[in-house]
Amino acid sequence: MPDQHLTQVRESLKQQQANVDQQLSELNVADQARLLSELKPGDRQYRFEQVKHPAQVLEFLPLDQQLQIANQLTIEQLANVLNAMHSDDFIDLYKQLPIEKQQQLLSKLSVQAHHSLKVLHAYPEETAGALMSSDYVTLSPELTMHEAIATLRDIAGNHDTLYLIYIVDAEQHLVGVISLRQIVQAQPTATIAEVMTREVIYGTVDEDQELIARRLAYYDFIALPIVDAEQRLVGIVTYDDAMDIAEAESTEDFLKAGAVEPLDQLSLKTAPILSLYQKRVFWLVLLVFGSLLSSFGIARYEDIISEHIVLVFFLPLLVGSGGNAGSQSATLMVRALATGDVQFKDWFRLIRRETLVALCLGLTMALAVSILGYIRGDLMVAVVLAISMMGIVLLGCLIGMSLPFVLNKLKLDPASASAPLVTSICDASGVVVYLFVASQLLF
Amino acid sequence: MPDQHLTQVRESLKQQQANVDQQLSELNVADQARLLSELKPGDRQYRFEQVKHPAQVLEFLPLDQQLQIANQLTIEQLANVLNAMHSDDFIDLYKQLPIEKQQQLLSKLSVQAHHSLKVLHAYPEETAGALMSSDYVTLSPELTMHEAIATLRDIAGNHDTLYLIYIVDAEQHLVGVISLRQIVQAQPTATIAEVMTREVIYGTVDEDQELIARRLAYYDFIALPIVDAEQRLVGIVTYDDAMDIAEAESTEDFLKAGAVEPLDQLSLKTAPILSLYQKRVFWLVLLVFGSLLSSFGIARYEDIISEHIVLVFFLPLLVGSGGNAGSQSATLMVRALATGDVQFKDWFRLIRRETLVALCLGLTMALAVSILGYIRGDLMVAVVLAISMMGIVLLGCLIGMSLPFVLNKLKLDPASASAPLVTSICDASGVVVYLFVASQLLF
Repeated sequence: MPDQHLTQVRESLKQQQANVDQQLSELNVADQARLLSELKPGDRQYRFEQVKHPAQVLEFLPLDQQLQIANQLTIEQLANVLNAMHSDDFIDLYKQLPIEKQQQLLSKLSVQAHHSLKVLHAYPEETAGALMSSDYVTLSPELTMHEAIATLRDIAGNHDTLYLIYIVDAEQHLVGVISLRQIVQAQPTATIAEVMTREVIYGTVDEDQELIARRLAYYDFIALPIVDAEQRLVGIVTYDDAMDIAEAESTEDFLKAGAVEPLDQLSLKTAPILSLYQKRVFWLVLLVFGSLLSSFGIARYEDIISEHIVLVFFLPLLVGSGGNAGSQSATLMVRALATGDVQFKDWFRLIRRETLVALCLGLTMALAVSILGYIRGDLMVAVVLAISMMGIVLLGCLIGMSLPFVLNKLKLDPASASAPLVTSICDASGVVVYLFVASQLLF
Repeated sequence: MPDQHLTQVRESLKQQQANVDQQLSELNVADQARLLSELKPGDRQYRFEQVKHPAQVLEFLPLDQQLQIANQLTIEQLANVLNAMHSDDFIDLYKQLPIEKQQQLLSKLSVQAHHSLKVLHAYPEETAGALMSSDYVTLSPELTMHEAIATLRDIAGNHDTLYLIYIVDAEQHLVGVISLRQIVQAQPTATIAEVMTREVIYGTVDEDQELIARRLAYYDFIALPIVDAEQRLVGIVTYDDAMDIAEAESTEDFLKAGAVEPLDQLSLKTAPILSLYQKRVFWLVLLVFGSLLSSFGIARYEDIISEHIVLVFFLPLLVGSGGNAGSQSATLMVRALATGDVQFKDWFRLIRRETLVALCLGLTMALAVSILGYIRGDLMVAVVLAISMMGIVLLGCLIGMSLPFVLNKLKLDPASASAPLVTSICDASGVVVYLFVASQLLF
């Protein structure tokens, strides 16, 4: 198994065995990077300068370690590494370098790297333009397959993104796409124009990266071509970037669902304590105001509580159930919106269905809690509990299901309908329902 | 933009325009499938029988619609479609067909389809074996590049998974991998053995599909070869399957975090009400017992509550803050475990860091709540609230951070440490802390 081998090399690294560089070089570049990332900065630098494919290893390291290493290399070494990197990774690292280093590098970068700098440098974060790479190959539609293969053979080296070849006219307008498979399998004398797919699915430079990732996954593509406002091909986004984006977006939604601000690139293991504090304190304090609503609900009915202190016993149970049911509804809704299973226009239909589910859940819970109420109180308490529970669960579900839509209407992220937020709203409404029902039936 | 075109064809479909089949056929197969999936079953069947690439369109439809369509086709039509499908999609559909239909089909399936049936039919759900497809191409190491291209040209048609070519010996043992790019770009007279990568990263048939998807994403591979217990190549898993799995696993974790059982393939829009009820009622009832702990905590201190009814006012606020802080901790931990950012062995280090974060959060919250306490109560109430809040937030964070680890030790899914579960545990401990502090300081 791959992991055993990895553990072995990790041991060799620790013990600084003589043949460790040889062992390391036999691993996949992703694994080499993983092992290097575990070392102390000095050791990492030393080993990095021995690896066979430094550019590829560097790409798999976290950006802060890339920068650390880059700053220790000579300008010549650094230029060689940068020239061999994928264009999107190259740009990400280049942007982080000190200005004077950037300037010293300019005369030493390859034509391809200069092209990438020109094309990729300018786009805002989180757009297709900032995500795309310029590592793609274009051919003209009039070439034959035989000529195409000869051309591809001539194109030098690092292009491992040679799966889809884009066909452009003289002004670089995207007119078709062809796969290497199609080229290899077609008659050698056929022209590209005869074989290529003309209806190309593409993205534009200013689109949100999440949309691009979704489109790529939806069509099961290996890469999506990106065009500028004039429909000229300027880059591609590949499946591996789409996977990374999809994971990052899932993480963001997941944390929001737990009322935590996204950590961005931070690791839970190494993030500064103060950053973690900042990502959490906002929601925690904000939710206090939600809880205060419950408190005022309680204050409004303090008389009835002191009269029937047994009511307090059931308070957490009733109020909690509303919050739990509401969290479930919000969770289902937020995720279904994120995966595209439902759209905002489905809201009315969903609410109808949710009401039915909530009634079933409410009945079950009412039955359970009324038995408890009868045991600990009397028949009247059981009736109060059953009615309250029914109302609280129904209300909770409707709140949970509606909150993401309301947030969207307010131009906020529907994923901010976190379990804690839903819970605190449902708690407050639960307190009011419960104590209102009790005040009507027990006096 | 692609979406406008789609809307246009959707309109044409609705109005049953004469040239609609032509319009439909110009779309990407994924879009054709999307439009068909929106039609009524009868219309869908009719349109499906007109499409140009029925096998590919069928693959993009949900499995229940695939089955509906398959059952309406003649055995000859169905066999043609099945023979042209990707092997993994073919197997998924074939398994669902009625037994007599399966038997009628047998004599009409291609050699390739029979091979897939033999190789892929037998593996348990959620393993690499059940996920993999047999649509890959193998070559022998002794071929030259020139011969390799000639061989690839001869291999008939549907293989759009021709990106990586696996090199096997006479017993089908996996000995190397080569990309179509490498073949095209190497010297025509070089042999595959000279160019191929020998250290192949692979998966085994019995591994969990989630591990396979993670490995593929980790190495940024397009496909991962799958071997049996004797190291023979038996299938591949491709990046698009890995993306689907990653999304499905994220959805599962997301729903668990909201205390909802995974919906599997169900859509929130169309799932039977009873199924939705079943996915939720278990946790909702279970959490009642969590709430009961709070209730018993309250019962234990009923005297002090009736003496100082103002305490009830602050109960939701204090107890809720513990639950919120705990949910945040659990959320951070569950996600970091899922993405591989932290491992279980990091627990001790994480708890130390979490304690620091919790102290900062607790201090902030204590300050906020003691001001409220002073306004509504007196200095003594403010002190009770500050001390309680500090303890409750600290305890909540430690519970939230530890619960995923505890669940793992109990061989349960750490993702079941849902916000509602954490909240109900933190609520109970919060009640006890609050009322204990109050009983000590106010009597």
